[in-house]
Amino acid sequence: MLLMLYLIAITAEAMTGALSAGRRGMDWFGVVLIACVTALGGGSVRDVLLGHYPLTWVKHPEYLVLTSVAALLTIFIAPLMRHLRSLFLVLDALGLVAFTLIGCMTALELGHGMLVASISGVVTGVFGGILRDIFCNDIPLVFRRELYASVSFAAAWCYMGCIWLKLPAEQSILITLFGGFLLRLLAIRFHWEMPKFHYNDEH
Amino acid sequence: MLLMLYLIAITAEAMTGALSAGRRGMDWFGVVLIACVTALGGGSVRDVLLGHYPLTWVKHPEYLVLTSVAALLTIFIAPLMRHLRSLFLVLDALGLVAFTLIGCMTALELGHGMLVASISGVVTGVFGGILRDIFCNDIPLVFRRELYASVSFAAAWCYMGCIWLKLPAEQSILITLFGGFLLRLLAIRFHWEMPKFHYNDEH
Amino acid sequence: MLLMLYLIAITAEAMTGALSAGRRGMDWFGVVLIACVTALGGGSVRDVLLGHYPLTWVKHPEYLVLTSVAALLTIFIAPLMRHLRSLFLVLDALGLVAFTLIGCMTALELGHGMLVASISGVVTGVFGGILRDIFCNDIPLVFRRELYASVSFAAAWCYMGCIWLKLPAEQSILITLFGGFLLRLLAIRFHWEMPKFHYNDEH
Repeated sequence: MLLMLYLIAITAEAMTGALSAGRRGMDWFGVVLIACVTALGGGSVRDVLLGHYPLTWVKHPEYLVLTSVAALLTIFIAPLMRHLRSLFLVLDALGLVAFTLIGCMTALELGHGMLVASISGVVTGVFGGILRDIFCNDIPLVFRRELYASVSFAAAWCYMGCIWLKLPAEQSILITLFGGFLLRLLAIRFHWEMPKFHYNDEH
Repeated sequence: MLLMLYLIAITAEAMTGALSAGRRGMDWFGVVLIACVTALGGGSVRDVLLGHYPLTWVKHPEYLVLTSVAALLTIFIAPLMRHLRSLFLVLDALGLVAFTLIGCMTALELGHGMLVASISGVVTGVFGGILRDIFCNDIPLVFRRELYASVSFAAAWCYMGCIWLKLPAEQSILITLFGGFLLRLLAIRFHWEMPKFHYNDEH
Repeated sequence: MLLMLYLIAITAEAMTGALSAGRRGMDWFGVVLIACVTALGGGSVRDVLLGHYPLTWVKHPEYLVLTSVAALLTIFIAPLMRHLRSLFLVLDALGLVAFTLIGCMTALELGHGMLVASISGVVTGVFGGILRDIFCNDIPLVFRRELYASVSFAAAWCYMGCIWLKLPAEQSILITLFGGFLLRLLAIRFHWEMPKFHYNDEH
């Protein structure tokens, strides 16, 4: 089931990446690259930081094909995308939590402690979007809109909590997925935001 | 011969990197760093992604000396550079194809399949320029002008085709170099471009 | 003593990272992430480039806690920060030289030569700041103000010189720390700058 979710998540993330590239007027090749970076970049950064080789897409190059096809498809159905915004927010929320879960599990399997595992989860969850914004020369959105990185962080610690309580693996995954997903949807619905820090040298 | 081409390529790429840094008014140290990143960054990203240690410039630090000297030289001959534009386009085209070839060969030697090898080639070919543009706070040019990343991609698959046809190694390299080089020059001459994807949320 | 200096350095760097994030109006989560990247990013880039696993913060996750706490503290004492500017410049200078030293020593311990070790020192010293500026969508400051990257480079070669002269380890460290620190303070005081390279295609 987690694999299923993962495939949906990388497809959805690839499509948001393709739209970002389209906002910058990139050519088709750029659209495909930004889509792949958005979908697979978080996991790649995690694996490079943890020294966990081979990377996911090196082991399963078919994921690259999936994200590339999703990116090209996005170009053709772009006019429809405006009507699918809600669907995308839902898929993206699912993806965020699924990525986070996979990141935590990867680090735990490698024998890392809970703190490193939670960082691994957040990196997997949010770095795809950060890389997308850096490549498109934007300030990363991740830290400027409704709870997003924080949802990833909360989901990571929810999963750690479940493990600490020695819940069965399946149950831990379901609780985390459901909890994180709900938190993200509530944050979107009620515009929950983290407090912001504004600093100005001039005063 | 491939080593010869590689040395010419990193020198030419270092000089384009130095000019980019000069457009941003960086100091000499920044010029040298941007030059090294442009020339050696593509191969470094590839090696980090594939877990292929040590990196090229760690094994051959003399390449760093070469690119640094090329960068400093660029500062002094900058007024001449305007008249050498065509020469640079030719060297850069050669470099793009040589980098791509080396990237493909590296991945194949590590035992990866053709899809991963072609990605490895494109990453080696274009990431130096992408990193240069990110460091200089530009939107990566690679995806906005005439066929460039696409030439790298085509060259990678041309080489894969040669291997699949079991042509001798030397012949495969020559065909790829010549074909890729020609394609890039034609793209520049006739302003061939990939179709662009423009997306606007506002409509 | 070097560990002590390292802890002071990552705290000071975390606080400068937090202020940068504040200038961009990021939320608390972003502030913590930028602080961690600024403080631990230089060493992480070095370790990834050299294939030196596990990374410092994976081995010592308590450093992440330290930098996160420093970042959150910065939010609350931000109004005071304006009066502490000189203190910060001093701590940052100490940090720059300490990072550089640690980077050189890490590479030498891994058996690399002096050229690679000096690059390792400079990368450790300046990449935290470069990543901070890339994440905040600024042109890296490192190459635009008074001698900074150059101080890191000079400190690296000062240390290499001490080793080449076969001075005892402690003495080499002290000479490098003091020399680099003094050079940076003099550069700030007298606005010493590297010459800049300005290039303009239009002429």
